[in-house]
Amino acid sequence: MCEKCRWRASSGLATLSPVYDYDLVVLGSGPSGQKAAIAASKLGKRVGIVDRRDMIGGVCINTGTVPSKTLREAVLYLTGLSQRDLYGSSYRVKDEITVSDLAARTQHVIARQTDVIRNQLARNHISMITGTGRFADPHSIWIDGGSARETKVSADKVIIAAGTRPARPSSVEFDDRTIVDSDGVINLQAVPRSMVVVGAGVIGMEYASMFAALGTKVTVVERRERMLDFCDEEIVESLKYHLRDLSVTFRFGEEVASVERHQTAALCVLKSGKKIVADTVMYSAGRQGQTDDLGLEAAGLTADKRGRIAVDEHFRTAVEHIYAVGDVIGFPALASTSMEQGRLAAHHACGEPTRDMHELQPIGIYTIPEISFVGATEDVLTDSATPFEVGIARYRELARGQIVGDSYGMLKLLVSPDDGKLLGVHVFGTGATEIVHIGQAVMGCGGTVEYLIDTVFNYPTLSEAYKVAALDAVNKMRNITRIDG
Amino acid sequence: MCEKCRWRASSGLATLSPVYDYDLVVLGSGPSGQKAAIAASKLGKRVGIVDRRDMIGGVCINTGTVPSKTLREAVLYLTGLSQRDLYGSSYRVKDEITVSDLAARTQHVIARQTDVIRNQLARNHISMITGTGRFADPHSIWIDGGSARETKVSADKVIIAAGTRPARPSSVEFDDRTIVDSDGVINLQAVPRSMVVVGAGVIGMEYASMFAALGTKVTVVERRERMLDFCDEEIVESLKYHLRDLSVTFRFGEEVASVERHQTAALCVLKSGKKIVADTVMYSAGRQGQTDDLGLEAAGLTADKRGRIAVDEHFRTAVEHIYAVGDVIGFPALASTSMEQGRLAAHHACGEPTRDMHELQPIGIYTIPEISFVGATEDVLTDSATPFEVGIARYRELARGQIVGDSYGMLKLLVSPDDGKLLGVHVFGTGATEIVHIGQAVMGCGGTVEYLIDTVFNYPTLSEAYKVAALDAVNKMRNITRIDG
Repeated sequence: MCEKCRWRASSGLATLSPVYDYDLVVLGSGPSGQKAAIAASKLGKRVGIVDRRDMIGGVCINTGTVPSKTLREAVLYLTGLSQRDLYGSSYRVKDEITVSDLAARTQHVIARQTDVIRNQLARNHISMITGTGRFADPHSIWIDGGSARETKVSADKVIIAAGTRPARPSSVEFDDRTIVDSDGVINLQAVPRSMVVVGAGVIGMEYASMFAALGTKVTVVERRERMLDFCDEEIVESLKYHLRDLSVTFRFGEEVASVERHQTAALCVLKSGKKIVADTVMYSAGRQGQTDDLGLEAAGLTADKRGRIAVDEHFRTAVEHIYAVGDVIGFPALASTSMEQGRLAAHHACGEPTRDMHELQPIGIYTIPEISFVGATEDVLTDSATPFEVGIARYRELARGQIVGDSYGMLKLLVSPDDGKLLGVHVFGTGATEIVHIGQAVMGCGGTVEYLIDTVFNYPTLSEAYKVAALDAVNKMRNITRIDG
Repeated sequence: MCEKCRWRASSGLATLSPVYDYDLVVLGSGPSGQKAAIAASKLGKRVGIVDRRDMIGGVCINTGTVPSKTLREAVLYLTGLSQRDLYGSSYRVKDEITVSDLAARTQHVIARQTDVIRNQLARNHISMITGTGRFADPHSIWIDGGSARETKVSADKVIIAAGTRPARPSSVEFDDRTIVDSDGVINLQAVPRSMVVVGAGVIGMEYASMFAALGTKVTVVERRERMLDFCDEEIVESLKYHLRDLSVTFRFGEEVASVERHQTAALCVLKSGKKIVADTVMYSAGRQGQTDDLGLEAAGLTADKRGRIAVDEHFRTAVEHIYAVGDVIGFPALASTSMEQGRLAAHHACGEPTRDMHELQPIGIYTIPEISFVGATEDVLTDSATPFEVGIARYRELARGQIVGDSYGMLKLLVSPDDGKLLGVHVFGTGATEIVHIGQAVMGCGGTVEYLIDTVFNYPTLSEAYKVAALDAVNKMRNITRIDG
């Protein structure tokens, strides 16, 4: 094996193929694209990654996840919301929070995170190909870098990680000021006094939470009768309770019939005849795959009407050497799962042995308070007639809960009475998206509720909730055994 | 089995003993005492817990862990320290932070946490016996409740959970204003401009961090050449670096020869002849078991010269029906381990089958930044000639690290190259004491580094550091295998 040019040696069969510019070209530099490129590069491959100069990191970094989570952190801090339990309900770090207070932090984080990604790509000797890519044929891609002449690159394998954009209903006149979509909302020029959020999905509810925390009067309009119905029902009820406490109004089972723009506000008319005046209307009505300009037909591929590309269990499209990963393949369209898809697709494309994607995929929702879970919900277990016991811990009973001023948080364990295995872990409140991984590790490594009972947790932490909830579940099961034998 | 008076039925042999007022009396209501009492009560026992009205929750709640961690949270928030990376280094929520700003929060949390404990004890039908306890004989305890006449209670089993107080060198004149111990420091009337901390143990370093963050010029004097030497050396070095950045001076291998109180300050003279003027001198020179007034001799027990009581692996003292748990038995003297000791001692006393204490006990140190680890350090593994590979993740490369403004945090995994098992998990930075439990769960449930590689973590979280560090370790091991076969 040649030590100097390891990639060649480890490329194996690739030496039989025609010589391409790259072993792998990745279209899109969002979470799934980055992880795909890095994984292939670590296997010694020559990798190129295509994206526009102003879109390094994809939607995730530039208009989606990262700005929204940064905004959320700034909102929590500047409103003092999490501290009100301790310092009184009128407490605020800043009396008048302006968009520039919020935007400063967001721009800072985006700039740094973009740097980190550039650095990671460079360190792994991945070529950054600046521009937008369009298939010329199944192994070649035109790169439009904005200059007069396009260039062309060729690749043995291609991974499409083109992402999505907000779907914009054609009947709505978006102006990016009064009527915005979920990508545009981070560029608002002022914190609106009132807002209608159309669509109670994850993104809609995350922004509804943030603006409610900022003092905006928020009305959520949702076509269906429920929201976030893949989550634990009790936790969704708690979220609704807390949002109503921040003056949010919910209109379930309702649809927007029309939105009229007026001088300084918009008038929303619902199909039921209700009218709502709001400074801002935000549509959060699903997302559309960004595949229109990829020249898919030149590669022998098609997308569905939502712009999505179909893949098999190895993330391979209908064309064997072309893969697709991330939001562009649809559900669950979370940065976390997309990254794993990227890594697995790259390994498969490079002929590395791959395992299936881990079945325990956590869901994290950055509402205020935040929600995270892994495994089954009570509803799913009941529907499948799987017995379970519930163990609950409330943050307000934990020293750490008191210290951080979280009196509403809770952790719920669903435990199998047969073997003590954890069937589901549901967390609501401070740090939910972090501490859910403790339960996930127990589930993933084959532990039981007994592990949690015997474990020593740092004091004072929120993680202690696991022990409290485990004891609660085991005490209930013991009481049943006493009666039931 | 009698359903109405279950405790009798489940007491088993206890019916042969003389009738006592209680099945179990616990002396002290700190973390270990509470958990002992609750565990016994859940087994159907009649339990009494003895403590002074103003000491419910023990030192932990009233002068130790909880006030200190609450103070820390207030310091972090009010100084804006964690936000400076985002808003600039002169950023502060409050320009002049007063002791009353800090104390308000602490008093609030103490009051609530005391309520929670009272409630938990009441809900579990545990009798609160108000006063201080003193053995009359091995099964009887005098209760001095402050009134003229003492009362006496009897118990089949006794658990001593009397805790500790700061050791006060006899040569030092403590005045609780200028010269204080670590319990007195939370009652300071003003934030000192300068401070000498004598002793670089956990408590000393936690307070040194907090006051440094508040802008106090801190000098740490430590007799030994190193500090926190049970921790990862790289992390302790990082801590020192960060504290020096907050103007902390370290004097290792030095001792205080004398402390003179002057009008508004104290003059510390070190044995090396160096002199230090400081508004406040805090001694943090170990802790002493609170056993002087327990009447141990009446129970047939003795304490060592540091007031500690010796126990066996079941936390039994030399007298078979008397147990001791928590700080009063010495190392590690952490609330987290003490709670587990309490539970295990109660189970053993009640004849329940008990397991040994889990060997994976995490250490959490609430310095700024915080430190937590579980398992072995590099030094320990090297000393025992155990091969390991290191996997590192830096917070600044994680989106969440950027969002929360933590550019210094890191997670280090020590992985066995033989079987991929985790040998140690070391975390430095935001949330260290929480996320260490993810690695602890993997270790405790028999998982390997492969689990972490295949796991999907919520994005953006600090927990993602596990995946990054795991990939780092595995890539290094793969490179070695390539060369070494």
